[in-house]
Amino acid sequence: MLRVRPIGPIDPPIGIGEDYLTRLDRELDSRGVRLSDGEVIAVASKVVSYSQGRVVPISWWSKVGDLARRIAEHYGAEPWKTAAVLEEADLLLGGYRGYLFTYKNGIPVGSAGIDRSNSPPGHVVLHPVDPDGEARRIVEWFLERWGVAVGAIIVDSRLTLFRRGVLGVALGVWGLRPLRDLRGKPDIYGKPLRFTVVNVADSLAAAAALVMGESA
Amino acid sequence: MLRVRPIGPIDPPIGIGEDYLTRLDRELDSRGVRLSDGEVIAVASKVVSYSQGRVVPISWWSKVGDLARRIAEHYGAEPWKTAAVLEEADLLLGGYRGYLFTYKNGIPVGSAGIDRSNSPPGHVVLHPVDPDGEARRIVEWFLERWGVAVGAIIVDSRLTLFRRGVLGVALGVWGLRPLRDLRGKPDIYGKPLRFTVVNVADSLAAAAALVMGESA
Repeated sequence: MLRVRPIGPIDPPIGIGEDYLTRLDRELDSRGVRLSDGEVIAVASKVVSYSQGRVVPISWWSKVGDLARRIAEHYGAEPWKTAAVLEEADLLLGGYRGYLFTYKNGIPVGSAGIDRSNSPPGHVVLHPVDPDGEARRIVEWFLERWGVAVGAIIVDSRLTLFRRGVLGVALGVWGLRPLRDLRGKPDIYGKPLRFTVVNVADSLAAAAALVMGESA
Repeated sequence: MLRVRPIGPIDPPIGIGEDYLTRLDRELDSRGVRLSDGEVIAVASKVVSYSQGRVVPISWWSKVGDLARRIAEHYGAEPWKTAAVLEEADLLLGGYRGYLFTYKNGIPVGSAGIDRSNSPPGHVVLHPVDPDGEARRIVEWFLERWGVAVGAIIVDSRLTLFRRGVLGVALGVWGLRPLRDLRGKPDIYGKPLRFTVVNVADSLAAAAALVMGESA
């Protein structure tokens, strides 16, 4: 049985620079939640971004360099956003009609995850820094303070080729095996499975994001 | 709270041509499962394929036509499989080193979903026919026989760009809204969300496939 229980929304939301772990601890405590070994804690990546102070004014990119200007022109993208993307993206994959396609933190994502939704007016939220490290901090926190061995995932949402709508995705993982390798295991006829590796972390992220609602 | 409860594995597995609905009914009954309105039933697409008799010997494609032969040569793919893919795929997207990339039943999938795993030796399992229609049959069955309004998804697994491992995906859906459209809803600052549409069906499929294990 898989159980996904929401603890949020938390009110007020995490402030810029506020440590979400202290807050999460308090929220769990006030709700009387008891954690057990083997449970997985899913935290929205935006919560981590806020906590890390990764909320910045658009005016940050008022000076646009020559390369950014040329790329912006080529793809019809906003100059400030192109400058921001060049700074943030791990890879720029291409662009189309004002959109820039990038690779960042292990997923293909528009504009390096730079997002205006759930950001103060005139500001954007950036992808968190080191999501695996953040997942590790969560695992260590709960081991030290609660004495339980949980797993942790940092959840973002992403688009999928040929499908409408977004799905949760594990931007960071710690304390659980992200892949369940079934290769070599027998199928129902006893023949070995040749390709099947299940992405456990992303499957859990999809379930968690469904329960989180619109604030991920 | 999201709860995903497995009812299988069922033993023996669904036979070729056996109606899975009769069987599902019996299995739920023998386990004392009570369904409620709003629950979603997830059935592995392979169960549907078996039920539909979509398990065929490879020798079926012993005669390979001229087009199939040329495509097989071009991509280094097996001739029989190329012939099968041309018959099965909704679109042939391309190929690479023996693999054929296709679009079928609403998802990008290798070889039109033709699969040797969990198939009798010398046979392959084909993608089910009309997965939405099958999901509808499930919904209607439980409405008529149990008097409950459930939703249904037919679950397969698929690869995702840039990620290792597979995820569950909803090949067919009935009785639930597959997309939750949040566009225009306020974010935490009251600004309208511009893009967010959540793929509920695929999120549920990912969670269900995780619980199903290797037989999906």
